[in-house]
Amino acid sequence: MGKYDAIKEEACAANLEVDRLKLANLTWGNASAFDPALGAFAIKPSGLGYGELSPESMVVVDLEGRVVEGDLRPSSDTKTHLVLYRNFEGIRGVCHSHSPHAVAWAQAKRSIPCLGTTHADQTAGEIPCTPVISPEAVARDYEAGTGELIVETFRGRKPLEIPMVLVAGHGPFAWGRSAMDAVHYAAALEEVARMAILTYAIDPGAVPLPAHVMRKHYERKHGKSAYYGQPGP
Amino acid sequence: MGKYDAIKEEACAANLEVDRLKLANLTWGNASAFDPALGAFAIKPSGLGYGELSPESMVVVDLEGRVVEGDLRPSSDTKTHLVLYRNFEGIRGVCHSHSPHAVAWAQAKRSIPCLGTTHADQTAGEIPCTPVISPEAVARDYEAGTGELIVETFRGRKPLEIPMVLVAGHGPFAWGRSAMDAVHYAAALEEVARMAILTYAIDPGAVPLPAHVMRKHYERKHGKSAYYGQPGP
Amino acid sequence: MGKYDAIKEEACAANLEVDRLKLANLTWGNASAFDPALGAFAIKPSGLGYGELSPESMVVVDLEGRVVEGDLRPSSDTKTHLVLYRNFEGIRGVCHSHSPHAVAWAQAKRSIPCLGTTHADQTAGEIPCTPVISPEAVARDYEAGTGELIVETFRGRKPLEIPMVLVAGHGPFAWGRSAMDAVHYAAALEEVARMAILTYAIDPGAVPLPAHVMRKHYERKHGKSAYYGQPGP
Amino acid sequence: MGKYDAIKEEACAANLEVDRLKLANLTWGNASAFDPALGAFAIKPSGLGYGELSPESMVVVDLEGRVVEGDLRPSSDTKTHLVLYRNFEGIRGVCHSHSPHAVAWAQAKRSIPCLGTTHADQTAGEIPCTPVISPEAVARDYEAGTGELIVETFRGRKPLEIPMVLVAGHGPFAWGRSAMDAVHYAAALEEVARMAILTYAIDPGAVPLPAHVMRKHYERKHGKSAYYGQPGP
Repeated sequence: MGKYDAIKEEACAANLEVDRLKLANLTWGNASAFDPALGAFAIKPSGLGYGELSPESMVVVDLEGRVVEGDLRPSSDTKTHLVLYRNFEGIRGVCHSHSPHAVAWAQAKRSIPCLGTTHADQTAGEIPCTPVISPEAVARDYEAGTGELIVETFRGRKPLEIPMVLVAGHGPFAWGRSAMDAVHYAAALEEVARMAILTYAIDPGAVPLPAHVMRKHYERKHGKSAYYGQPGP
Repeated sequence: MGKYDAIKEEACAANLEVDRLKLANLTWGNASAFDPALGAFAIKPSGLGYGELSPESMVVVDLEGRVVEGDLRPSSDTKTHLVLYRNFEGIRGVCHSHSPHAVAWAQAKRSIPCLGTTHADQTAGEIPCTPVISPEAVARDYEAGTGELIVETFRGRKPLEIPMVLVAGHGPFAWGRSAMDAVHYAAALEEVARMAILTYAIDPGAVPLPAHVMRKHYERKHGKSAYYGQPGP
Repeated sequence: MGKYDAIKEEACAANLEVDRLKLANLTWGNASAFDPALGAFAIKPSGLGYGELSPESMVVVDLEGRVVEGDLRPSSDTKTHLVLYRNFEGIRGVCHSHSPHAVAWAQAKRSIPCLGTTHADQTAGEIPCTPVISPEAVARDYEAGTGELIVETFRGRKPLEIPMVLVAGHGPFAWGRSAMDAVHYAAALEEVARMAILTYAIDPGAVPLPAHVMRKHYERKHGKSAYYGQPGP
Repeated sequence: MGKYDAIKEEACAANLEVDRLKLANLTWGNASAFDPALGAFAIKPSGLGYGELSPESMVVVDLEGRVVEGDLRPSSDTKTHLVLYRNFEGIRGVCHSHSPHAVAWAQAKRSIPCLGTTHADQTAGEIPCTPVISPEAVARDYEAGTGELIVETFRGRKPLEIPMVLVAGHGPFAWGRSAMDAVHYAAALEEVARMAILTYAIDPGAVPLPAHVMRKHYERKHGKSAYYGQPGP
């Protein structure tokens, strides 16, 4: 068994979950699984259909951006994943999708306010939207620049407490303690983005959830005394 | 055969129906089945995926909130179910979902007016939205407090005639004479919530259904001389 | 083989198509198949799930409203179907659904203007919305009254050229030369209703399709020199 | 093996993909595959359900519009395909659908501005909408006239760089270097159309993606140094 087999299997399972949760149309979107001990992550190959994926087809890339295993070209968004793994301590999975409601907020260049507990179950505050990437960053290295834009946007924010972002004019990225968590945050983001659009359709003046409910929901799922889900092994 | 087997099977079937009707994303949502003779209800375990559910995995809780059977932690919303079973006479099932259109009304903190017969087939009037839960109730016991908020909102209302509510900033709860009925009311609420948003998109000044049609539809399905469906056994 | 077997099979197939096309939630909606030679139609039994239907479970009703075959209670909307069969010459199938976008137009009490060729392929003009049924008609016979309201709305209109209607505050009815045609018109109506909502979301001042395109599309599919589809047997 | 077998198989696979991607309701929509060496294209027969299609049922039409193989009547939109094959050099597939969000833009008679990278991945600018077809063109030859309207709209535009169009009051046509590519562009157009509606719902004043991001995204997928997808064989 090869040393990258575990992350390749994890990355493949996460990409299949992207498809199962209908977060991606055609070949769009990608997920990766990172192992800090190996200093490498496995990611979807570029442009392949979800039906064609297997653990073997995953591409393994190190933190210098070199392909260390795999015959195919990695996702065109590989460097964005790389910059996130380098800068966001503790994350082991990243997911990028073009799910339509999250993309709509990104295209409107707006952060998503926390309007209810579905949102607060993911993060206790707004889901931030980056500024539009500069012409200089595009010219230098577009995909790395996208990652840097996210990192910049998260100065003063804790990535594991806000595991998702909207890249202005582009779409969502999500991350987590595993590739599967990253995909599930991407799914939650899409649903929260949809609910926010529907809420404003009912009341354009809708206001955010009060802080006491927002914190409570976040803490019961993610705080020190969390009681959502089953106790860990 | 154990004395809780019937409600565990009923609760499991109801939770699978939540999934089949696409009322829940990921692990969200939960349904429970109550037997007043046993003074206990069976509920979905917290944080499990719908594909992992079996009658055996259901958790049985008594009306004091003690787990009386089952190895897993019950749904984090268990106390809300409990308060409803204690206060709403005649109900034997509760369903909570985060279905997006019902959540949107809850996030907008608006009751849903009865705009048509699809709605009137469920209840002959608006679907009420609670106020936002107070900081004190959150501090004391959030989930029980959510149940009390619903009970408070239903003073002067008959729970079996209005088998659903929107909890402000959170989402829908539905109930009925069985766990399956509760799930079907949650499904109907989601569809009615969606239709209401679409109706106001066409005409922001749309007005409720006149009382003579509203009563007629409700009565033909739920009244003393109801003739919808097949006669009972 | 019984004399009603053919319409029972046709009605069952049409109701299964309602389900396959996702026109109905839960047990809602119904389709029927009429044979003028027999003076009777077969219709979905009331309140049954679509998964429980078989040709044997269909209920046969004559034009006086008497059940002439079948053990179950017929759809609660049976008399509406009956009034349509009595008044609309040439129709042999009726379908009623609560599909959400068509219901939204009915709840907004608005006819759907013909905004494009998808609509013109069904009918060359608006899809009419009835007035709200009167308290007197509800008191006298609600379901027959609903049929009479539709018939009234169609004075001066040709039912086979406008095979669909919105009943205000209620939802759509569609009909055609067969039960399957009626279901397909109900499906087309739902899609056309959805497209119209989306069109007005883009441009609230959107205007109807010019008559020269509307007539052309209708005629190429339904006119004397129609060339859409395959020649009949 | 017949000389048209390859394009018949390609056309059948492309039409099945239209169905798989849910771009068509009922029998609506059609795709064709063209071989310039044969001077002919294979197209869906008119009015057949997607479940009834096989390579054998495809109809082969030459560039004069004559059926050269096949027992069925070709799609009623055949002449529109023909005009596109005659005028747009390099295209080998055309797809027409009535997908709802693209139809909504066509019914609103509006081009779709490029609001984000999902759009820029398809084409680096707006997706044009034609004018409404004239009464004269309808009277002369409606389907050929629709093709000519598209060709007219593309004067000064490069069809292979903008592989899609909205025909005002009608719906989308897409094309590409293969029938499958045309279908995938039709799917992308539907998703981009949906995202644009959602974006304007969030912010009616949303502005297009800046040119430096738009060009970058288009070039990384379609430019001379494209690095999206896998290298060709």
